[in-house]
Amino acid sequence: MVKKLTPMSEDFNQWYTDIIQEAQLADYSPVKGTMVIRPYGYALWEHIQSYLDQRFKDTGHQNAYFPLFIPKSFIQKEAEHVEGFSPELATVTHAGGKELEEPLIVRPTSETIINHMFSKWIKSHRDLPMLINQWANVVRWEMRTRLFLRTSEFLWQEGHTAHQTKEEATKEALQMLDIYEEFTQNIAAVKVIKGTKSEIEKFAGAKVTYSIEAMMLDKKALQAGTSHELGQNFSKAFEIQFSDENNELQHPYQTSWGVSTRLIGMIIMAHGDDKGLKLPPALAPIQVVVIPIIPKNSNPDEILKASTEIKDSLQGVRVELDDRSEFSPGFKFNEWELKGVPVRIEIGPKDIEKGSVVVARRDVDDSKSEVLIENLATEIPELLDTVQNDMLNSSELFLSENTHHVDDMDSLIQQLTENDGFVSCYWVEDKEDELKIKELTKATIRCYPIENTDEKQSVNKADQPGKFVIFSKSY
Amino acid sequence: MVKKLTPMSEDFNQWYTDIIQEAQLADYSPVKGTMVIRPYGYALWEHIQSYLDQRFKDTGHQNAYFPLFIPKSFIQKEAEHVEGFSPELATVTHAGGKELEEPLIVRPTSETIINHMFSKWIKSHRDLPMLINQWANVVRWEMRTRLFLRTSEFLWQEGHTAHQTKEEATKEALQMLDIYEEFTQNIAAVKVIKGTKSEIEKFAGAKVTYSIEAMMLDKKALQAGTSHELGQNFSKAFEIQFSDENNELQHPYQTSWGVSTRLIGMIIMAHGDDKGLKLPPALAPIQVVVIPIIPKNSNPDEILKASTEIKDSLQGVRVELDDRSEFSPGFKFNEWELKGVPVRIEIGPKDIEKGSVVVARRDVDDSKSEVLIENLATEIPELLDTVQNDMLNSSELFLSENTHHVDDMDSLIQQLTENDGFVSCYWVEDKEDELKIKELTKATIRCYPIENTDEKQSVNKADQPGKFVIFSKSY
Repeated sequence: MVKKLTPMSEDFNQWYTDIIQEAQLADYSPVKGTMVIRPYGYALWEHIQSYLDQRFKDTGHQNAYFPLFIPKSFIQKEAEHVEGFSPELATVTHAGGKELEEPLIVRPTSETIINHMFSKWIKSHRDLPMLINQWANVVRWEMRTRLFLRTSEFLWQEGHTAHQTKEEATKEALQMLDIYEEFTQNIAAVKVIKGTKSEIEKFAGAKVTYSIEAMMLDKKALQAGTSHELGQNFSKAFEIQFSDENNELQHPYQTSWGVSTRLIGMIIMAHGDDKGLKLPPALAPIQVVVIPIIPKNSNPDEILKASTEIKDSLQGVRVELDDRSEFSPGFKFNEWELKGVPVRIEIGPKDIEKGSVVVARRDVDDSKSEVLIENLATEIPELLDTVQNDMLNSSELFLSENTHHVDDMDSLIQQLTENDGFVSCYWVEDKEDELKIKELTKATIRCYPIENTDEKQSVNKADQPGKFVIFSKSY
Repeated sequence: MVKKLTPMSEDFNQWYTDIIQEAQLADYSPVKGTMVIRPYGYALWEHIQSYLDQRFKDTGHQNAYFPLFIPKSFIQKEAEHVEGFSPELATVTHAGGKELEEPLIVRPTSETIINHMFSKWIKSHRDLPMLINQWANVVRWEMRTRLFLRTSEFLWQEGHTAHQTKEEATKEALQMLDIYEEFTQNIAAVKVIKGTKSEIEKFAGAKVTYSIEAMMLDKKALQAGTSHELGQNFSKAFEIQFSDENNELQHPYQTSWGVSTRLIGMIIMAHGDDKGLKLPPALAPIQVVVIPIIPKNSNPDEILKASTEIKDSLQGVRVELDDRSEFSPGFKFNEWELKGVPVRIEIGPKDIEKGSVVVARRDVDDSKSEVLIENLATEIPELLDTVQNDMLNSSELFLSENTHHVDDMDSLIQQLTENDGFVSCYWVEDKEDELKIKELTKATIRCYPIENTDEKQSVNKADQPGKFVIFSKSY
C-alpha cells in the first residue's frame, strides 16, 4: 500500500525516513542502530558495486578479504588512529564458551590488519605497488543513527595501497577520488565538489584526506567518498619495509579510500520529491515500467499482449511489466513513482488503435508524451540518456544556486546562520577559527576545492591570503 | 619463489596447506582460527559468486542484507538451533565504550534475524513465496581450524525462503540443491552425490537436510553445500503468519540453503597434484598463460610481439602474458603449474618460423602439442572445454573407483577401517547404530543418495529393509 509521505518542505528528515520505509529500501532491525537492507535498496548497492568494482579492476586493483576481528593491540599501534576510533568500537570478549585472553575489536576499518599483512607480503620494490580492495561490513558504534547515513554497521569498500614514492601515493589517492567523482556524477547524477579536508575533519591517521562533497535538497552537505594519503604513518607503525633498487630498506607510502552504503542516502536526498524517489537511469534497478490500462468492456488479452511485446522489444533496458490485476493504474502510477522508476509506459485500447503509447518521465513533472510503438526501441534508450543528463544538470544547477560567496567574517557567520547552502570564502587553515565557526553556526569546512587554486585575502586573518574553501552544515 | 610442495602421498594435509600458501590463495591471520583470503583465492570466490548469484536471480531470488549482530534472545528462540550453535558463538559485550544491556551474538547463520524480519514483512499469501539470499561473513568459533575448510570466520551465501505449502518448500530446497550440483559438476568439475542427511548430521533446527557430497583425492568426503527444509519450526518460533486465500492465518513452510568459501578447499583437494593446483577452466581466474621463450642471441622484440598478438587474438578467454624478464621459462612453468592455470602456450623463435606454438594442458601430464597460430582462436576455446569435461570425467571416475558396496555389518566396519573411500550399503536410520560405526571407524553417514530409492535387506537390522546410504570419513 502506498502511504502518503511527509512532504519534504514540512520535515525533510521525516520525508527521508518515510521514503526509505515506503519504497522498501531498508528497515529498522531489532539491534539498536543497525538496519536491514531490503532487496530494492540492496539492488541499488549491487549497481553501485558493479560499476566501482569494474573501475577498480581497470586501474589495477585486486579484491581480497581480511578478518572481521582485529586484536585490540593492533588498533593501538597508530596513535591518531586509535584516538579517532576508540569511542566507536565494539568488542568481542567471549567466544566458543570462554573469555578471550585478548579482546577482539570488530573492524571499524581495516587499516591495521591489512598493514600487518602487508608487512609480511611486501619485501622488495618488485612487490610494489600493492593495490588491494575489500568489500566488507564494518562496525562503528553510533549514538544517533539514521538509515544509510549513520548506522552502527554498514557496508563499504576500502582500498589499501602501498607505493615506492610519495608522488605515486598522491597520484593514486587522486585517481581514486576521480573515480568516485566519475561515479557520483555520471552514474548517480549528483554534482560533487572534490577537495581537501581541513585538519579537524581529516581521517584519523591520514596525512591528507580528500573528499567529494554533494549538496542534498535541504542544502546540507553530504560527504560521499574519501581518499586518504597516509604517508608513512602506518608503514612505520606496522614495520612495512621494502628493499629498493639500491638494496636499501624503505617504508612505503600508502593510501586508503572508501565509499559506503551512505551513497544510497545521497541518491535519495539529492533527487527525490514529495512523491518519492527519483532514480537516475544508470543506477535504477528498474529503468522502465510498462503499465497496461484496461478499461471495463475492453479486451485485457489484447492489451496484455501488446504490453508484453513492448517489454520484450526493449532489449538491454531493465524493464518490468506491471500486470497485477488487483490494483488500479492510478495506484500503480503512485507506487512506481514512489520507487523512482525513471520512465513509465502506459498502454490502453486507444493507444493500440493509434499504434502508440504514452511515455512519462519521473524526473520532471507533467512530462507525458506520445511515442509510436515502432519507435520505442530507439527512443526509450535515448530518453533514458536524456533523463540521466538532465538529472545531473539539475543537481549542478541546484548546487550553484545555493552556493554563496562571502568576503568577510561577519558575512560568513551571517550567511551560515541565516541560510542553508554552501558558503565559499578564502580561509587560512586554523583549528580554533574553524571550531569557533562551528560553535556559532554548526557549519564546518567541507573542503578546500581542488579546482580552485586562487589565493586571496582571507576572511579569518587580517592581511593574510587564504585558500578557497567551502563551509556548510553537513550530514 | 616457488618452494617445493610436500608431496600429496607423503602428507595430504601438509600438501593442502603448502598449496594454499605457495599459490597465494590465503594466509594465516593474527587472530587465531581466522584467515586472509588473498587476491588469487578471492578471484576464485568471485567466480563462484558470479555463477551462483546469476542462477539464484534466474530462479526468482533477491539479495538483501541483514545485521551482523543478533540479540542473544533470538538465538534461543528455536530450541534445537540454540543447542546446535551455542558452543561456537562469539559474543559482543561492550560497544561504544559501555557494557551492553543484552549481549550481541556475531551471526553464526542468520535464520533468527531473518525470520524476525519475515514476521514483519509477511502478512498475506500475496507476500509469498518470499525468496531472499544474502552474501555475508559468519562466525563460528572453532577449536581446530583449517584454511578454507573450517575457520572461525568464513564467507558464504545463505538463502532463506518462505512458502505457502510444504510441497513448495520441498521443491525449493531440492531446486537449490540442483543448482549447487550444477555448479560443482559443470563449473568446479567435481562429481557430487546428492542426498539426505541422517538425523545426527542434519542442520540444527531443520526437518530435512539435503547435501551434496564430494570425494577428495585422499578419498575423504567433503560436504560441499546444504539445503534445508525447515518445516514450520522457525515460522512458529518467530510467529510468522500469513492470511491464506480463505483469510485464515497460517504459518509458512521454510527453507534455507548455503555454500561457503569451503568450496575453494574442495576445488584444491579434488583436482590438485604434487605440482600444485589444477583449476577447471570455467573457474580459473587465468585460463591461459602465454610464455615467450627467448634464447640468447634471439630477438626478444619479435617474440614479445608475437606473444602479444596471440594474447590479443584470444578474445573472450582470460589470458595473461608472462613477459617478466627476470625469470626463466622453467621457473615460470613451475609457477603457473602451481597456480593451476589450465592451459599454457609457449612461443620461441623456432615456433615463430613454423607459424605455430606449443600448447600444454595442466590437467594431464606430458600433454604438449603443436598448434598453428592461425588456429589458436578456435582451438584454445575448444581445448578449454575439453579440459573442463575431462576434469569432471576424471573426478567421476575417481569417485566410482573408490566407492565400495557391502552387504553386512562386519564388511562395513572392515571396509571403513581398512580402506579410505566411500562405502555404500542398505541401512535403517538409527542414531545409536550410526554412533557405534563412528566410534569404531570415525566414518559417518554422508547421505542417503536421492537417486537410489531401492530398499534392500539392511546391514544393521535383521530382516529389515534399509535405504541406500553412503558412509565415509569426512572433512
